[in-house]
Amino acid sequence: MDLAARVHALLQERGESVATAESLTGGRLAALLTAVPGASRSYVGGVVAYATSVKQDVLGVPAALVETYGVISAECATAMARGAAGLTGATWGIGTTGVAGPDGQEGHPPGTVHVGLVGPGVSTALALELVGGREAVQGRTCAEALSALEGMLSTGTPG
Amino acid sequence: MDLAARVHALLQERGESVATAESLTGGRLAALLTAVPGASRSYVGGVVAYATSVKQDVLGVPAALVETYGVISAECATAMARGAAGLTGATWGIGTTGVAGPDGQEGHPPGTVHVGLVGPGVSTALALELVGGREAVQGRTCAEALSALEGMLSTGTPG
Repeated sequence: MDLAARVHALLQERGESVATAESLTGGRLAALLTAVPGASRSYVGGVVAYATSVKQDVLGVPAALVETYGVISAECATAMARGAAGLTGATWGIGTTGVAGPDGQEGHPPGTVHVGLVGPGVSTALALELVGGREAVQGRTCAEALSALEGMLSTGTPG
Repeated sequence: MDLAARVHALLQERGESVATAESLTGGRLAALLTAVPGASRSYVGGVVAYATSVKQDVLGVPAALVETYGVISAECATAMARGAAGLTGATWGIGTTGVAGPDGQEGHPPGTVHVGLVGPGVSTALALELVGGREAVQGRTCAEALSALEGMLSTGTPG
């Protein structure tokens, strides 16, 4: 069973669901989750928040947070995850933000990534420094995000 | 230049942007659009509206529309596209809804797909009957959706 299928199985055992909020992964995390037949029992949907305005206007990331920490930050990743869960009514929210490349952004080099994970009693973020091209960074971020949720559901920690 | 890159080039020539609203494609359309470096100049984001509640609560698809036509309909695809454009401020909205399989839904067999396309003076939908497994149906829907937008931007018709 692949990682996305294991996440769905764990969620379905608990009667829970997940929503996604994606910046640099641009829909890839949702695509992995919806590749699994029966995904609709534990995946409700999410937001691809590529532009900063979408992070703020749709996901409700506060402008003051963006001003203080920037969009490439743990704070933004967590706020995105919280926004997706709130908007959709899902139990869990996962947020991804970072620099896929080839260019840097806000002074951060490509491969700088933050994954936010929010759920019942949980609000945490992983900081990643990934190597490789645009596609590798986007793909690796999705794997780390799913692995963090699997860890949280199976052992209570994302690591 | 691949299809997504051609769509971005056409949008950028016109100073326009696109947003996505995805049900059966579950993020794949957004992923194709964000695979292109510099995508942020013409792709703002979108919504993965997998659950009917997300179509209604986030994209603003009217409950009465769902009641009358069902979610597997041209009407729903167009309303989703309109919702994504409205929510994000994009010039164009593309919506995908249908049955990826393996099971049917609302009496429709796998491969029944509607793609909605909404923009300045345009509100239209394509009805597709696709063959193949879940992944093939999802992938083919994305290609048809991008091709419809390319056609609209280059010749004024989606076909």
